[in-house]
Amino acid sequence: MPTFVQILEFIGTFAFAISGIRLASAKRFDWFGAYVVGVATAIGGGTIRDVLLDLTPFWMTNPVYLVCSALALFWVIIFGKHLIHLHNTFFLFDSIGLALFTVVGVEKTLALDYPLWVAVIMGTLTGAAGGVIRDIFINEIPLIFRKEIYALACVAGGMVYGLCAWWGIGVVWTELLSGCSVLLVRILAVKYGICLPTLKGDQRE
Amino acid sequence: MPTFVQILEFIGTFAFAISGIRLASAKRFDWFGAYVVGVATAIGGGTIRDVLLDLTPFWMTNPVYLVCSALALFWVIIFGKHLIHLHNTFFLFDSIGLALFTVVGVEKTLALDYPLWVAVIMGTLTGAAGGVIRDIFINEIPLIFRKEIYALACVAGGMVYGLCAWWGIGVVWTELLSGCSVLLVRILAVKYGICLPTLKGDQRE
Amino acid sequence: MPTFVQILEFIGTFAFAISGIRLASAKRFDWFGAYVVGVATAIGGGTIRDVLLDLTPFWMTNPVYLVCSALALFWVIIFGKHLIHLHNTFFLFDSIGLALFTVVGVEKTLALDYPLWVAVIMGTLTGAAGGVIRDIFINEIPLIFRKEIYALACVAGGMVYGLCAWWGIGVVWTELLSGCSVLLVRILAVKYGICLPTLKGDQRE
Repeated sequence: MPTFVQILEFIGTFAFAISGIRLASAKRFDWFGAYVVGVATAIGGGTIRDVLLDLTPFWMTNPVYLVCSALALFWVIIFGKHLIHLHNTFFLFDSIGLALFTVVGVEKTLALDYPLWVAVIMGTLTGAAGGVIRDIFINEIPLIFRKEIYALACVAGGMVYGLCAWWGIGVVWTELLSGCSVLLVRILAVKYGICLPTLKGDQRE
Repeated sequence: MPTFVQILEFIGTFAFAISGIRLASAKRFDWFGAYVVGVATAIGGGTIRDVLLDLTPFWMTNPVYLVCSALALFWVIIFGKHLIHLHNTFFLFDSIGLALFTVVGVEKTLALDYPLWVAVIMGTLTGAAGGVIRDIFINEIPLIFRKEIYALACVAGGMVYGLCAWWGIGVVWTELLSGCSVLLVRILAVKYGICLPTLKGDQRE
Repeated sequence: MPTFVQILEFIGTFAFAISGIRLASAKRFDWFGAYVVGVATAIGGGTIRDVLLDLTPFWMTNPVYLVCSALALFWVIIFGKHLIHLHNTFFLFDSIGLALFTVVGVEKTLALDYPLWVAVIMGTLTGAAGGVIRDIFINEIPLIFRKEIYALACVAGGMVYGLCAWWGIGVVWTELLSGCSVLLVRILAVKYGICLPTLKGDQRE
């Protein structure tokens, strides 16, 4: 029986893979290319985290992440034309994935006795780096560097985690509050189109 | 005296480096840039594999791979104009390299007691990831995500390796059959222009 | 009290981060995106080196590099319009960073008993790979593959280091001579516009 967290992780992986596969399909990638982009989106962030922490990449110990990405590929192949109507559902799934991946990244780092600021970075990498790899693969400027707040939601969630842990709140509540912060920041940012300012210093160049 | 496998490895490294250097030269890279792209094509896949497996990258223990890439650079500098006539020869060399790199990747992974599916992925990464890095360096969408079957030849070879090992065939035969499967799939795919279908779901976007 | 080398390291990190942030701002990145590109430029090379050497990435043990990159971001936000007049200052800072990063990379590698040629590569990666990551993030062909001599200055510095060490010159002098070689090659290359030849073999394609 999968636990509640495992089900959330499955949903997050599925949503991340869908996002990669859809962008790849818009660039006329073949099935294999789309699968690779989907997998990279789903597991890329966690892989970079595990390499930096000198751990075995998480997906090498359990094939469920690759199977889950394969299901996402079949889903897009079969229901591709109708996916566009599910935009809001996928946004929610993607945000749940972002929240969960952030919490997992923070916890894995703190368990190795790294300080909180490293854990916040690792949580952010886990959540957001997959999307950067996806955009490099499809030869676009990474979306998260230009559009509404995405990675900052992870930073916020990581800080809430640290705050809760420092206050001595129990693990489950810490995870919940941290994950919900990510969700909240992300959903508010998209709903109200909140962006960070852009830099204008070098326009003359 | 180099062994037969070492000679094949030399040929494969040379062919992979040539492919990187030629694409770099089409983009007006200087000699250094072309060399870096050639080296990255030749050793990039194996480096990612070794980092994920937490091994010392193979080229850091023996300078032969960098020397071999340098020879490829000199070759292109001297014979550049005539290389175009050798297209078929380089295709064969490149396919031999792909086959050999796949087998090496699978074996290195199985030797660390990882399951077969991890070994198949590592074999595919060893064979195909260098080309992805090459295409990112020259700022193109990776070819293997869109054109005829390339990485899938590695996947097929990895599976044949697993099948042979499971049947208890000797190591040499397992290596030979696995490598020949890669060669066969690759050559048939190019000869008959076999492609995977592309995704069409999101064209409306 | 920071040592002299730490002050140089601070200057180098600052200059590298500025270079990433300015290029990101020319592409209309938001503050977060610009910060990520700045950080990647400043610490990317050293991170790749540490991953290949199987060490804990240097910036994970001391937050000064991330703080320094944040200061660079604030600097660009506040003084952006006037930075253009400081072009020569930043070129000097950037070259000092390049020299120092190269020496650090060479020393870290030799301390692990790798041979000199590995150390030269690691020194070059430390100095030059950050700029490659920066250019991939902003979706441009890496500058160092096409413009005047940059990474070759690191190679020269690394070789001078090896030569000095082999002659038995003391560590401080070895570091100084090696770093000054990088500076000298880089400054001469820019002043006299010295470039490597480009490849022309495949223009017909």
